[in-house]
Amino acid sequence: MASTAAGAAPIDVAGREAARRRLARPERLRGLFAPRSVALVGATESSGWSRLVVASLRAGGLPGRVVPVNPRHASVFGLPAAPSLRALEEPVDLAFCQVATERVESVMEEAAEAGVRNLVVLAAGYGESGEDGRRREQALVDRAIELDLTLLGPNTLGYINPHARAAPFGLPITSPLRPGGVGVVLQSGALSSAVLDFSSRHGIGLSLLSSMGNEAVVTATDVVAHLLEDDRTHAIAMFLETIRDPAGFVDLARRALRAGKPVVVLKVGRSDAGRASALAHTGAVAGDDAVVDSVFRRAGVVRVRSLEELLVTADLLAQGLPLAEPRMGVVSASGGACDIIADRAHDEGVEVPELAPGTCERLTELLPPFAAARNPLDVTGFILARPPSGGRGLADLCLEAMLDDPSIDFVFNSLSVPSAEPADPGALHARLAALAETAGSAAKPVVHYSTTCTDLSPYTREVLDRHGLRVLPGIELGMAAVGHALRWGRARQHLLRQDHDPAGDLPAAGPAPRPPARTGPWSEAASRDLAASHGVPLVPATLVRTREEARAAADALGYPVALKVCSASIPHKSDIGGVALMVTGPREAADAFDRVHAAGRAHADDVEGVLVTPMRRGGIELFAGVTVDPVFGPVLAVGLGGVFVEVLEDVSLRPLPVSPGEVEEMLGELRGAALLRGIRGGVPADVGAVARAVSALTRAASSLGSALHTLEINPWWVHGSQVEALDVLVVTGPSERTPDMPGDRA
Amino acid sequence: MASTAAGAAPIDVAGREAARRRLARPERLRGLFAPRSVALVGATESSGWSRLVVASLRAGGLPGRVVPVNPRHASVFGLPAAPSLRALEEPVDLAFCQVATERVESVMEEAAEAGVRNLVVLAAGYGESGEDGRRREQALVDRAIELDLTLLGPNTLGYINPHARAAPFGLPITSPLRPGGVGVVLQSGALSSAVLDFSSRHGIGLSLLSSMGNEAVVTATDVVAHLLEDDRTHAIAMFLETIRDPAGFVDLARRALRAGKPVVVLKVGRSDAGRASALAHTGAVAGDDAVVDSVFRRAGVVRVRSLEELLVTADLLAQGLPLAEPRMGVVSASGGACDIIADRAHDEGVEVPELAPGTCERLTELLPPFAAARNPLDVTGFILARPPSGGRGLADLCLEAMLDDPSIDFVFNSLSVPSAEPADPGALHARLAALAETAGSAAKPVVHYSTTCTDLSPYTREVLDRHGLRVLPGIELGMAAVGHALRWGRARQHLLRQDHDPAGDLPAAGPAPRPPARTGPWSEAASRDLAASHGVPLVPATLVRTREEARAAADALGYPVALKVCSASIPHKSDIGGVALMVTGPREAADAFDRVHAAGRAHADDVEGVLVTPMRRGGIELFAGVTVDPVFGPVLAVGLGGVFVEVLEDVSLRPLPVSPGEVEEMLGELRGAALLRGIRGGVPADVGAVARAVSALTRAASSLGSALHTLEINPWWVHGSQVEALDVLVVTGPSERTPDMPGDRA
Repeated sequence: MASTAAGAAPIDVAGREAARRRLARPERLRGLFAPRSVALVGATESSGWSRLVVASLRAGGLPGRVVPVNPRHASVFGLPAAPSLRALEEPVDLAFCQVATERVESVMEEAAEAGVRNLVVLAAGYGESGEDGRRREQALVDRAIELDLTLLGPNTLGYINPHARAAPFGLPITSPLRPGGVGVVLQSGALSSAVLDFSSRHGIGLSLLSSMGNEAVVTATDVVAHLLEDDRTHAIAMFLETIRDPAGFVDLARRALRAGKPVVVLKVGRSDAGRASALAHTGAVAGDDAVVDSVFRRAGVVRVRSLEELLVTADLLAQGLPLAEPRMGVVSASGGACDIIADRAHDEGVEVPELAPGTCERLTELLPPFAAARNPLDVTGFILARPPSGGRGLADLCLEAMLDDPSIDFVFNSLSVPSAEPADPGALHARLAALAETAGSAAKPVVHYSTTCTDLSPYTREVLDRHGLRVLPGIELGMAAVGHALRWGRARQHLLRQDHDPAGDLPAAGPAPRPPARTGPWSEAASRDLAASHGVPLVPATLVRTREEARAAADALGYPVALKVCSASIPHKSDIGGVALMVTGPREAADAFDRVHAAGRAHADDVEGVLVTPMRRGGIELFAGVTVDPVFGPVLAVGLGGVFVEVLEDVSLRPLPVSPGEVEEMLGELRGAALLRGIRGGVPADVGAVARAVSALTRAASSLGSALHTLEINPWWVHGSQVEALDVLVVTGPSERTPDMPGDRA
Repeated sequence: MASTAAGAAPIDVAGREAARRRLARPERLRGLFAPRSVALVGATESSGWSRLVVASLRAGGLPGRVVPVNPRHASVFGLPAAPSLRALEEPVDLAFCQVATERVESVMEEAAEAGVRNLVVLAAGYGESGEDGRRREQALVDRAIELDLTLLGPNTLGYINPHARAAPFGLPITSPLRPGGVGVVLQSGALSSAVLDFSSRHGIGLSLLSSMGNEAVVTATDVVAHLLEDDRTHAIAMFLETIRDPAGFVDLARRALRAGKPVVVLKVGRSDAGRASALAHTGAVAGDDAVVDSVFRRAGVVRVRSLEELLVTADLLAQGLPLAEPRMGVVSASGGACDIIADRAHDEGVEVPELAPGTCERLTELLPPFAAARNPLDVTGFILARPPSGGRGLADLCLEAMLDDPSIDFVFNSLSVPSAEPADPGALHARLAALAETAGSAAKPVVHYSTTCTDLSPYTREVLDRHGLRVLPGIELGMAAVGHALRWGRARQHLLRQDHDPAGDLPAAGPAPRPPARTGPWSEAASRDLAASHGVPLVPATLVRTREEARAAADALGYPVALKVCSASIPHKSDIGGVALMVTGPREAADAFDRVHAAGRAHADDVEGVLVTPMRRGGIELFAGVTVDPVFGPVLAVGLGGVFVEVLEDVSLRPLPVSPGEVEEMLGELRGAALLRGIRGGVPADVGAVARAVSALTRAASSLGSALHTLEINPWWVHGSQVEALDVLVVTGPSERTPDMPGDRA
């Protein structure tokens, strides 16, 4: 067991990964995250870190033992210390290792000998700091595997589990911890303070907050897998800088969606979204961040853009309200708030329908004469000048009427609770109890909101808790959360329907890819051959090598024709004069051959000849291509051709595999989708035929395996149910996939 | 003086408006909003409203007299009461009138007799409640004019002036009021509570908060004019449901921009943005809300979308930091925060440049070895584990280095101040004093932020106040405010440059419009005549009435030609077969005449003939039209033709008048702008020539005066410097301008 890293037997990559996963599987993480006893290895009163960790553990209130391990002091921070982990009579459940980088390995050995199975490693100087650090981190992983240690970090601040009252954590925390249903996974430990602070002020309860550090052994994806099995976690909130195991993450996200446990992610890196400078358009339009968006949408991952939105959305989703239908009723005490809510509803695709006549009558009886019975409903300042004397007030009665309306799916209800105990707390409690009963007994969700995002006072939190009520902080964040919840609910329904009716399912994987003979751009003729062999419908074309062949081919295809020089070295044929369009006769065809052939020969040695094809006019031009994202692999981009893709970058993206049904969805997402439906007398496109053709393109792309760089058809010509690829470009090469680098920031 | 409304002499509309304005001019509003004494007319202990107003006045702490006026009680709420305003020995500066609607007029008379010149009227039942109410409100205005009374309301909650400690206001307020530089104007009184609460929690100081009510005498625009002259107001924050005096508002907004006093507006109604169903496209693309956007942008009005953004942005702008250049340095204690800030900067068009080598060296010496010297800068959790012993800490030294960097225009600096007094308050104060000195002595703005939007505790506010520091609440809101401030700063520079160099100024007004003889759509020939008479360049065209004339005209114009039936009753000629395109010879021209003429005759009795024009190919198609917005009047819409306007609605809007320079700006705003620069071998468009042509279109539109409904040219054909209108449509009619209705919500 005490072999050194240098002497360890080499472990193969796949075997090491399998071993690492065993250390990070949910049953192991249950132990890591819920210790009954914690040792603080390297704790010393002279260290700021030690001070912080001890303070956090105390604030958390761990019911079990906390033992500083320090060979030089019998007592640290007033706690009896042990000289080493081996000296402990009974092993602790967790060792929080705060020794210097060079001492970590010996602590790991000591831990293993002492029967400790879980370690948090604070030290930096690993993967985040250059080549030496990466080697050190690899050795750390190997050692953890050998020693059967589940290790969080290195370069982590630790974690907080409010249910277990465990807070082995290197930053100050807000006490008391509030247990709840939101599991938080952060790739930036330093954000924990802000997350804890905001959650605490808004009464958002957490099931776990884990600072991931370098994810050497336990990754963010592993923690999600654990939280998926954790009954106390009802929604997962993540801050992500990189996705280290994209396939695993996407698979888990879909499992989470199916299981009804929402995953909400603040994924940064929108600004430096790399855009491959590529021969083809696909690389230019499929920026990294647009691919992240499409992957998340498909997997039902809720993507947010601020920390506040992350926590508020996860908190709403953790409540498990059955939000999926979009017709919202609004009860407010301010006409201005009604207007703001109506605008935000519009942004979020939430409907604010008119009320049924019966509801209007009921409201008219309740409201003062100057108030209008409508949706959104302003119950007016009347409720302030004449507050309820007890039990249900005006606003609550209006809420009940709204909930009974058949045209309303859920109600967004203004709720304001005083910051400090009012003169008559009994009236407040009576009102909140009645409100909780109304909301609880209704068959429809009630979402309470405050007008702006302000802290809840301890008194307010206590009062809301007592009645089991939650209030979304502010219209802006509240409506954002409602919008996310509705979209998530619909995504889930969509997935469950797919599960039930797998007809629209993904295509079966084709035969194993064969590595192609060439790299770089292919000639158009070779590109066409590949596409044709996978069933892509192509415009007819003849490869000719002489004037006479050109003339004969043109005669056979019918005029007008186009001639294009065919060479792997000339992907942009028109730029060099290698294309002749609208050639209308045999003589012109022969002359055009001479012209484009000469232009090609002037630029390349590998001219294969000239392609002669009939011209297509009318109809619609489409664009479709597959490129390779460095994180998510092959991605299909579909758009309208011409200015739509070149100027407007109006494309829809999906990682492969993509079913024909999904291609139809992608077409529907385009800003220019109306063109496909045949505006102003155009022939509507047969989107089913288009989807089958694009599907064939994805099969052709997949056949290239890891050699695929780009396969692009630009344009397709679509006229009703006629679909033809007019130009095909294949680029292969050494795979552009780069390994995911560990982040270099805490 | 005591004449009744019924007996009053009729006042003409223009005279009444002039008289109303006199009552609402800034010198009158200074008195209204800064009373030294207040009478509460109708105050009674049994009324909830009375209770609220007295509580607010007390919370405000008015130094002068507060006198309840109540004929039946000698004392109200413990204050000695007067039986009537007349009974006061000395007139009060303001009467807050909370009597019932039917008694308001007698209180006005009483006030005038008693020498009171300012009135706040709480009562509802005026313009917001139907025809009777509108008549009542008109009588109220007439009476105020007769009696020389400046009147806020009716249907208002009143106002709060923290500098004057005056809070005649009908909702509970947060005490103590915080005086400051933000003037708040609300068209929804019920939002005041949220505004006051949020401001108070974030230490945002107000110069005024005015609930506008029905704006019968004093309008929101009047209050803005007052705040523009008020030295204590440094920024104006508005919540607007409608803009009652659009021309006045826009004029004031530009004055404010010139004067350097920012106007920030939350304008609701985005969701019900009306879109005129129109014969032409211009009406369809120039939705009301898009027009508001364009008007605001042009006038330098900052438009926000939430209450929080309204207040935080106004507060930042009120600080008067010279933010205009976009290169931002970031100092943060969290790598995750750095990532979020970088993304938000990207959204806001803010640059985060690399640092100069000298700065990197300086930072490297300051930072711990595992931290990277770069922008955005993560000073790491190091600062927590090893806090500064006094004075400048690590983060502050990094801030100084960043401020010295020549590639940085301003710094976004993380600042966290404890909620309660720390163990060593001296160290905190030393650090904040040093920070304030650094920020104060730097030639560049420093903007402090916290990570999320959480309340500042009273202790934190006190500490920040003592050192003159402000902290933006959260990265999300903070970066939104910074983005607004930068755009506002640039808009101001732009305006000042225009002032300095009026060459690019607006065109002089043309001759007075003559009402046209016809209403409804005009025939294309008549439309062309109008356009031509104002210098719009047109494609040549000949109106013919026989086969022979058609053949001759086609011969003269040169083939291919187009033939279009010409009739005022057939605006959509192609829909009825009234157009023949690509006609290539004389015989075909004669046949085409017969065809389109017959098609026209089958649909209309007023066929004027057939227009023969040469076909234009190649080049770019543009779209430009003028339509009439119900609030802002004639609006120019410019876009690319074809799918860009019909499918993508990619247009830029400006209310008239528009200078040729502004047309060039509008073209630059289009999503498809790259097309004008000649992508993929196209000829670049001469945008100067386009701008002159569109300018001529606006002159033609203006010549129609209030009869203008639409003047649209779709398409223009542009080929380099050749610009020709290919199709012109004029629609006139009774003006569609609808009067602004008073809002019907408090």
